[in-house]
Amino acid sequence: MTDPDIEAIRALLASRPRPTELAERRRRLDALGAQYALPTDVRIEAVSANGVPAEWNSTPGAEASRAMLYLHGGGYVAGSLLSHRSMVAEAGRAAGLRCLALGYRLAPEHPFPAAVEDAVAGYRYLLDQGFAPSRIAIGGDSAGGGLTAAMLVALRDQGLPMPACAWLISPWVDLESTGESMASKAGSDPMVQKPYLLEIADLYLGGVKPRTPLASPLHAALHGLPPLLIQVGAAETLLDDAVMFARRAGAEDVAVTLEIWPEMIHVWHLFHPQVAAGRKALAAAGDFVRRHLR
Amino acid sequence: MTDPDIEAIRALLASRPRPTELAERRRRLDALGAQYALPTDVRIEAVSANGVPAEWNSTPGAEASRAMLYLHGGGYVAGSLLSHRSMVAEAGRAAGLRCLALGYRLAPEHPFPAAVEDAVAGYRYLLDQGFAPSRIAIGGDSAGGGLTAAMLVALRDQGLPMPACAWLISPWVDLESTGESMASKAGSDPMVQKPYLLEIADLYLGGVKPRTPLASPLHAALHGLPPLLIQVGAAETLLDDAVMFARRAGAEDVAVTLEIWPEMIHVWHLFHPQVAAGRKALAAAGDFVRRHLR
Repeated sequence: MTDPDIEAIRALLASRPRPTELAERRRRLDALGAQYALPTDVRIEAVSANGVPAEWNSTPGAEASRAMLYLHGGGYVAGSLLSHRSMVAEAGRAAGLRCLALGYRLAPEHPFPAAVEDAVAGYRYLLDQGFAPSRIAIGGDSAGGGLTAAMLVALRDQGLPMPACAWLISPWVDLESTGESMASKAGSDPMVQKPYLLEIADLYLGGVKPRTPLASPLHAALHGLPPLLIQVGAAETLLDDAVMFARRAGAEDVAVTLEIWPEMIHVWHLFHPQVAAGRKALAAAGDFVRRHLR
Repeated sequence: MTDPDIEAIRALLASRPRPTELAERRRRLDALGAQYALPTDVRIEAVSANGVPAEWNSTPGAEASRAMLYLHGGGYVAGSLLSHRSMVAEAGRAAGLRCLALGYRLAPEHPFPAAVEDAVAGYRYLLDQGFAPSRIAIGGDSAGGGLTAAMLVALRDQGLPMPACAWLISPWVDLESTGESMASKAGSDPMVQKPYLLEIADLYLGGVKPRTPLASPLHAALHGLPPLLIQVGAAETLLDDAVMFARRAGAEDVAVTLEIWPEMIHVWHLFHPQVAAGRKALAAAGDFVRRHLR
């Protein structure tokens, strides 16, 4: 390991082990996001997106006719509008559009498929607001990356128009955690370990089988999805989730770009004020979105 | 399949099955490349690169201080400066630099490691000519993509400075052909089938084991390699070679971008005058190279 930025984040994470109690886990993730003050040019506006709590997150250069629906991570059991607000602001700035961040329902209070239903409702809200599908991108990290994939599959199956593209950061798409990197990267991943994933998968699944396609989109039919940018860190247990999903989608004739970032940890973009590679990854995603939106 | 450009190429290939005799195979691949007239602004200059036949291929916008070493495909037994000249010219134009295309020795007359030795000699020639490593890119397709990877491993092990980046098209990196796509894509790939690969692998290996790292770089240690762009078609038996190599390199902290192109066949770039996706892929590679060369 040679990246000093990510070493500093590792030291921070090591000093604060993940709490076992869910409410405390949620507070911790929110605090992680809230530690970075929002730039004064970021505008936040709360809205109800077809009944789902949401917020518009925009910066001065945003093109009004373009939007990104953003689905935060947190294992389907944590994460919020607050936890990801700083990162979403910079993603929108890089892509030159407004972001609609979605506060979808969380498990275990609301197990699968509540999150998928809310994501579809959020996308429908953008269509209702008059956004052309060709001017909509989807973004999501970790569980929100899996949710992005599941939502796209649901949109396709419901006959809704596809968005222009989607951006998946460190996506969690295999709720069985079968990737080899679950073991090979266990020693280098400071955030995500297989026992934790299996624990929260149970909370989310609420009794449905883990290979249910909309819960583990690795097992969904993926034809007809829009171009995908998948970004993952080399130090992640979830590395193989990203690789396996890229392979499956690509084999079904989805245009896939998979980026593997050396030394990076799970959703390193969250730490963008402290990690140069986080800022670079946000910039790369912004370029991707700009190229794909008409 | 819906891409009419690639359908036309499929029809062309189906009308002309691959010959069984090696000399005829070589003539066929050369003719495939020579079917496209070079634009009049392309300048070709034959040189000896440390004893290896080579040619400079340049277009008017080329930056004189930047170069790409290009390693053609053809299964290590065919392919030449002629077969890939048109594609190399457009790759150099897209990247804004001069290309040094290398006529490395072919098997079975010159089995492994002759090609690797010649590739290293070609790279050393660029260094001898005064090119800074940070201003050198490597490009290669099919066997030339595997040769690119092997050459990078050899450079690292010899302590030579790394080039700025490398671009691998439909790389052949596993001479055992173990990828699942060897079967799952057999029906959609009009050019490359496993029996053919195993036949030419034998010719190239000349008796060494197929997992020899510099022959099958999938099995090499990959740490320390420069950023890689890997482009592969979704209709290829070699799809999993690209995916497996991306995964292995990424896991060893190499910066990897893997692009899977819907419906595309093996090294579709070769058909760029007839296939829009070939021109787009060349443009994407040019952007990648420009971003990585200082």
